[in-house]
Amino acid sequence: MNLKKKLNINNSLKFQKQAKEVIPGMTQLLSKRPDMFSYGVWPGYYKKAKGVYVWDLDNNKYLDMSISAIGASILGYADNYVDNKVIQSIKKSVVSSLNCTEEIKLAKKLISLHPWSDQARFSKSGGEAVAMAVRVARSYTNKEVIAFCGYHGWHDWYLAANIKKDNLKEHLLSGLSPNGVPKGLRGTSFPFRYNNINDLERIIKQNKNKVAAIIMEPLRNFIPKNNFLKKVKILAKKNKIILIFDEITSGFRLCPGGAHKILKVNPDMAIFGKAIGNGYPISCIIGKKKIMNHFQNSFISSTAWTERTGAVAANATIEKYIKKKVHIKINKLGGLIKNKLNDISKKYNLPVTLFGYDSIIVFIFNNKHSNILKALFIQYMLEQKILASNVIFLNDSHTKKDLKKYFNAVEKVFKKLSEYNNLKEMKLDLVGKPSKTGFMRLN
Amino acid sequence: MNLKKKLNINNSLKFQKQAKEVIPGMTQLLSKRPDMFSYGVWPGYYKKAKGVYVWDLDNNKYLDMSISAIGASILGYADNYVDNKVIQSIKKSVVSSLNCTEEIKLAKKLISLHPWSDQARFSKSGGEAVAMAVRVARSYTNKEVIAFCGYHGWHDWYLAANIKKDNLKEHLLSGLSPNGVPKGLRGTSFPFRYNNINDLERIIKQNKNKVAAIIMEPLRNFIPKNNFLKKVKILAKKNKIILIFDEITSGFRLCPGGAHKILKVNPDMAIFGKAIGNGYPISCIIGKKKIMNHFQNSFISSTAWTERTGAVAANATIEKYIKKKVHIKINKLGGLIKNKLNDISKKYNLPVTLFGYDSIIVFIFNNKHSNILKALFIQYMLEQKILASNVIFLNDSHTKKDLKKYFNAVEKVFKKLSEYNNLKEMKLDLVGKPSKTGFMRLN
Repeated sequence: MNLKKKLNINNSLKFQKQAKEVIPGMTQLLSKRPDMFSYGVWPGYYKKAKGVYVWDLDNNKYLDMSISAIGASILGYADNYVDNKVIQSIKKSVVSSLNCTEEIKLAKKLISLHPWSDQARFSKSGGEAVAMAVRVARSYTNKEVIAFCGYHGWHDWYLAANIKKDNLKEHLLSGLSPNGVPKGLRGTSFPFRYNNINDLERIIKQNKNKVAAIIMEPLRNFIPKNNFLKKVKILAKKNKIILIFDEITSGFRLCPGGAHKILKVNPDMAIFGKAIGNGYPISCIIGKKKIMNHFQNSFISSTAWTERTGAVAANATIEKYIKKKVHIKINKLGGLIKNKLNDISKKYNLPVTLFGYDSIIVFIFNNKHSNILKALFIQYMLEQKILASNVIFLNDSHTKKDLKKYFNAVEKVFKKLSEYNNLKEMKLDLVGKPSKTGFMRLN
Repeated sequence: MNLKKKLNINNSLKFQKQAKEVIPGMTQLLSKRPDMFSYGVWPGYYKKAKGVYVWDLDNNKYLDMSISAIGASILGYADNYVDNKVIQSIKKSVVSSLNCTEEIKLAKKLISLHPWSDQARFSKSGGEAVAMAVRVARSYTNKEVIAFCGYHGWHDWYLAANIKKDNLKEHLLSGLSPNGVPKGLRGTSFPFRYNNINDLERIIKQNKNKVAAIIMEPLRNFIPKNNFLKKVKILAKKNKIILIFDEITSGFRLCPGGAHKILKVNPDMAIFGKAIGNGYPISCIIGKKKIMNHFQNSFISSTAWTERTGAVAANATIEKYIKKKVHIKINKLGGLIKNKLNDISKKYNLPVTLFGYDSIIVFIFNNKHSNILKALFIQYMLEQKILASNVIFLNDSHTKKDLKKYFNAVEKVFKKLSEYNNLKEMKLDLVGKPSKTGFMRLN
């Protein structure tokens, strides 16, 4: 009870109760549900945010060392430069019966950052953009099967892989339910494991001349080994398969543009979202002209995609990102965090496994009660006014000072966690409800 | 050449050329492509817009009597009240690792406007929201077939109806290409014609116990006859089919909320978009709790949907809409336009057919060269600095003074058009390229 007092999130909890009544599942995004962190202690809702700080409904001010709006904030919250550009565009109207010019500027910018590409199309959410790419690849190749690796959203084409059995088990969101996905899509998509070229070879062999596209995150929790991406590209080319990199999460995390630039393998199409708008809804597909032409061979069109602020925000975000060399900073800070987490983990004999690249870090407690430890970690960090979980997205507003505060807090909490002798003791201190899932990374 | 000088859209035309290079099809929305109006004269791009005025790249200032951002502008462009609320929310950050509270307020508002509903979920674009509703209906009923009437976007479930043949012929966008839609979806969706209950009965009979949902626009170009909607509802109930009204275009056009409130038939789910955000991207599904629960039985989740400005804009738009009784005004003005178009048409013996309800008007020249006449109409209206086509979406910023200006211009143009003796004469005056399609309404 003392802990609950320390946390003081009464308004947030009341609000969560109301929210549950009117929104099935409470939120629009699984990864922002309080029960994905620790239900009962996670504040869930915010009033305002600035830089790396977030204010909840009880006026708690938190340092955000968690998901940075699940990667959508790459510069930090309410970035003045981006927001002022957006506000200027709002004053000139976000829509009209005519089109905005900013999307052309954005298309040119993304193409210049990825010289292998010729054209671009825009939409508002990430999963939507992947569904567009799937449609276009199927139209271009006149084939249907998709081989994929990683997480790619909620659409039918993706969940179809789960119709028969839990094919997505090793793809971050095990058990994603395909309820409501037509059974006729069975056999149209198959997952392969990262760094496992045999998986992909098998899919291509078993679906001879039927594979339209390979869709994958160029990297996620692991880096490519044994020329994995190059081998994927060779397989794609040999079998006339479109290679699509889903850079919605990885884009602008390693460099200005797709991670594939660093990994030195160019796809036929690439998809961006999240970070490019610094929070404003914008997603994008870039690709080679002969393939992108098939946007005209199929019907892909939406009113909301013509809205201006997304393109304005993306232009400003990319401009500032490049000027400030954000990728260098976030990866440097992330490297420091990784090292420090390793050190603290060793010091208190509380082993963790670290995944991911430096600007997106994931850690898991190597313990049979890892979910309880995660919930206690969240709880004790919240007491110190830090939003933290086992996933850390860095952004340009994070400073060394923030890291110092974070490290001090983590050290205290790891010490505390290391002192538990058994599950009973842990449960005695537990205020919230641990998340059931052991997702390596929330999506 | 004189005409081209009069129009003076050199910058716009240069820009369109560049846009075509980097965006397949030039725009994100079919209905905003200059070639859907008259390529070569339609300015295509805007710098700024305010109220009912739009400034193009050559600093021409137009009165917009056309599509009002294809219905997305219900209050008028750059509405101060809505924009100020949005700007305030931007200063408090459009995203964070926590959720915004405004979506709960919006959910409650939409539910209170539609007391048959219990819960809401949000997304950013219209077609995306319909795809969500389809998934949920299929999950809830454990059936797959969709019977639909009207236009519902670009997703696979919808275009699947066109796999076999052009089933969408009488559904506004005849010939929508299903290229890239998996063949396994054949037989999962079937169109029925508005006011034709036999069509729907036949689909239900031919797909006994397989129809999951009926998705329809409660009204579009025609009003229901012979209790059509009531009969649809009875069929749905009898056959345990979810009735979904797509109110993306019709919502807030006849009353504050769905058109079904006026038509006195409640669905099980309803979908809103376009107008509710006054241009900011926001779409919404409301529905009965037992059905909406299936948002949790399937996986439907996206980062972009948690962004704040959409909900803020919708709350402000609905608030102002109700306060100003916008529905009364736009339908009154629309009624005046219909009458006047009829009068002018008769006066100059240039027959037209009028469709739609008062706040969204469609007219077609009853002439074998209707597309050429439409292109000439657009061209001559542009010369008088009016954006106009054969579709008119009214919004709250339109005034009687604007209508007077419009009527004067229309009268001049109809007179001119009535004086053509043959196709050759028309073509001599034609500057732009007429649109090939005869869509009754652009989408």
